Amino acid sequence: MKVAIIGGGAAGMSAASRVKALKPEWEVSVFEATSFVSHAPCGIPYAIEFDFGSEELMYYKPEVFVKERGIDLHLNAKVVEVDYGKLRVEENGKEKTYEWDKLLIATGASPKVPKIEGVDLENVFTVDLPPDADRIRRAAKEAENVVIIGAGYIGVEMAEAFSAINKKVTVIEFLDRPLANFDREISNIVKEEMEKKVELKLEESVEAIEGKDKVEKVVTNKGEYKADLVILATGVKPNVELAKQLGVELGETGAIKTNSKMETNVENVYAAGDCAETINLVTKKPAWIPLAPAGNKMGYVAGVNMAGGNIEFPGVVGTQITKFYDLQIGKTGLTEEEAKKEGFNVKSAFIQANTKVHYYPGAKKTFIKAVKDADTNRILGAQIAGYEMVTMRVNVFATAIQAGFTTRDLFFADLAYAPPFTPIWDPVIVAARVLKF
Amino acid sequence: MKVAIIGGGAAGMSAASRVKALKPEWEVSVFEATSFVSHAPCGIPYAIEFDFGSEELMYYKPEVFVKERGIDLHLNAKVVEVDYGKLRVEENGKEKTYEWDKLLIATGASPKVPKIEGVDLENVFTVDLPPDADRIRRAAKEAENVVIIGAGYIGVEMAEAFSAINKKVTVIEFLDRPLANFDREISNIVKEEMEKKVELKLEESVEAIEGKDKVEKVVTNKGEYKADLVILATGVKPNVELAKQLGVELGETGAIKTNSKMETNVENVYAAGDCAETINLVTKKPAWIPLAPAGNKMGYVAGVNMAGGNIEFPGVVGTQITKFYDLQIGKTGLTEEEAKKEGFNVKSAFIQANTKVHYYPGAKKTFIKAVKDADTNRILGAQIAGYEMVTMRVNVFATAIQAGFTTRDLFFADLAYAPPFTPIWDPVIVAARVLKF
Repeated sequence: MKVAIIGGGAAGMSAASRVKALKPEWEVSVFEATSFVSHAPCGIPYAIEFDFGSEELMYYKPEVFVKERGIDLHLNAKVVEVDYGKLRVEENGKEKTYEWDKLLIATGASPKVPKIEGVDLENVFTVDLPPDADRIRRAAKEAENVVIIGAGYIGVEMAEAFSAINKKVTVIEFLDRPLANFDREISNIVKEEMEKKVELKLEESVEAIEGKDKVEKVVTNKGEYKADLVILATGVKPNVELAKQLGVELGETGAIKTNSKMETNVENVYAAGDCAETINLVTKKPAWIPLAPAGNKMGYVAGVNMAGGNIEFPGVVGTQITKFYDLQIGKTGLTEEEAKKEGFNVKSAFIQANTKVHYYPGAKKTFIKAVKDADTNRILGAQIAGYEMVTMRVNVFATAIQAGFTTRDLFFADLAYAPPFTPIWDPVIVAARVLKF
Repeated sequence: MKVAIIGGGAAGMSAASRVKALKPEWEVSVFEATSFVSHAPCGIPYAIEFDFGSEELMYYKPEVFVKERGIDLHLNAKVVEVDYGKLRVEENGKEKTYEWDKLLIATGASPKVPKIEGVDLENVFTVDLPPDADRIRRAAKEAENVVIIGAGYIGVEMAEAFSAINKKVTVIEFLDRPLANFDREISNIVKEEMEKKVELKLEESVEAIEGKDKVEKVVTNKGEYKADLVILATGVKPNVELAKQLGVELGETGAIKTNSKMETNVENVYAAGDCAETINLVTKKPAWIPLAPAGNKMGYVAGVNMAGGNIEFPGVVGTQITKFYDLQIGKTGLTEEEAKKEGFNVKSAFIQANTKVHYYPGAKKTFIKAVKDADTNRILGAQIAGYEMVTMRVNVFATAIQAGFTTRDLFFADLAYAPPFTPIWDPVIVAARVLKF
């Protein structure tokens, strides 16, 4: 049996490893366009901040997959065409054709590039693949003024990275707040924190990037900003071109539609990772939230099923986390805005709390915005900003939402308490109490 | 309506506050034997370590309850006898009688004092009420050699406290490991860590405490240890004497038996907090786990129900956490040993993991022992030791166990990931995968 996998990122390599573990005698070939495998763009901001090489961004080296796991790994191998049962690949300057019985599309996502003048100038970058990390690091050494276009996750993380290495950073965002996928109460905390460290320009739209050869400035509808280095961080889109060639159906989110076994509408063709759609467990509707943990698990599920097993990927609750310097910011489930759009009868609570009992040194502030369905008391989502333990509280909410907890269930959650770690009434419990039950 | 509450700790004051909030016109009297309210012994080790006064251990000052909440608060008021409808109280040297229509017994727990010679010597202490903190602090200033008898939570926390203020600390434990309510894999990590900082004497039983007026040494079956200060930390027992006077039934754990509304077998008599039994949600059997968060919530539930409401305390999963210097140690649900005793067909996993992705600075080690029911794949418990994020992972397990998660549910939990916080495959997810589903 010949299994072909397009894309050697988290999902592709998870799937390949699973298939070989379950069916060692099968031929499993992975075609990866770069020289990197099991990589993820989430590390790139930290490669800039802590100045390490892109090879560090790989979780496993290619040899591990080839020698230990017996995978037929093709690096620098760009799949240019897919037919049923066949693949055409540009590999080290040559074109080759490979046959497949089962195919996994794990082509990932790519940055959206805004349709403005100057995006091709030298020192204008997107944050996507490991080689970008090296190019950006190199350019950063010469740069003084950095302009980041977009204040989503990547924009916020790159803003910290460049500010931490002493660049003058300007962040330009079209919307009225950073991390606008959070409700305003939380985004505003992020805004205040960012304004301490970088120039944050909100409600400005970039009209052009200008320069002779290298970038020199960014022009917006409100002004212009000197720039030696520009980061385009205006979102990502799923890579679905090859899927479309094969007649694979896309979902309403624009990503590849699959069932819970990661099967597409085309027999023997699977999709997993950032190119694939999944289900939001709160709304039960299709969702596209391209993040590494779900990508890995989708790959795992696809691999098991391709190898003849039977396992389902249940979906996600949309858990996400990031930080800007000491401020940690996370969410799970729906925001109030999202929940209202979905037609829920929403009640929300916004609380401020300390992270430890009053007498234990080092307590920090934390803020929780929690949202419930007022008809059923089910917890729909939570957003948390704070200076420690945000991951803990986001994960408690994520687990509670996955379990379908009501506010009462959450109020009675038996969470750990000791003075060095938490207050007696954990802020999560307080949020449940304020939401009422 | 006259409500009397015996005990002004966490449970008593939570209940009193609830009743007054719901029935402001009712007379709510709290009788507290000390001059402290809303206190908890969990802070005492930190009062020693960070050298602060016992008044800091109160969450709210007495005035808050009297002035803001309208509670009739009697401090230094020891209830000496309870009859149906009546209380006899020793108050400021006088004896008084009060009437009640509804009664809450919130008498807490007290340290067990070993039946050996010398426990009454000067500078031999138990860790119980806020005044103990001041007495211990005062004695510690003069002490060089501290002997702690017992290596449970209090023993471990007091060992850190005295070692941190540069005392020579010897911990004597009858069993073969510290924190013996954990499985051996985890206790052994604690043992190693403790041995770096204190003299840990295991499998030794204390035979006498000796000295002229003040304590001078502790004698065991294996040797003797110089001691200027001794801490007795050999467990606690529920305070049930007053309950027994009234004919209130005790449960199989020895604590007061209640239903989920915190009602005892005697009409209009409730019990809550460290003197009351509850249900272990994993075994569905009576459990006595005297800890502050559950105590507070039991008080809340008792208060609502005394005021005519209807709310149930569902029980606990037994979540606990502590630390010894940088090592954080927590558990929830059943250990392997406990699960076997309960007759489960147990499968366990013990994993070691790093707390962050490899390229992000500052990753630390963490160890998870997780236990499932091999017949149903339900998660039964987890124990975690590590150098960060233990609270997070214990709380994820606690929430998952409360929800009745199987290993598969937990494997697909949508936990937060970003390089500064966690690895892509969170150790919790890895544990679920190793346990199989």
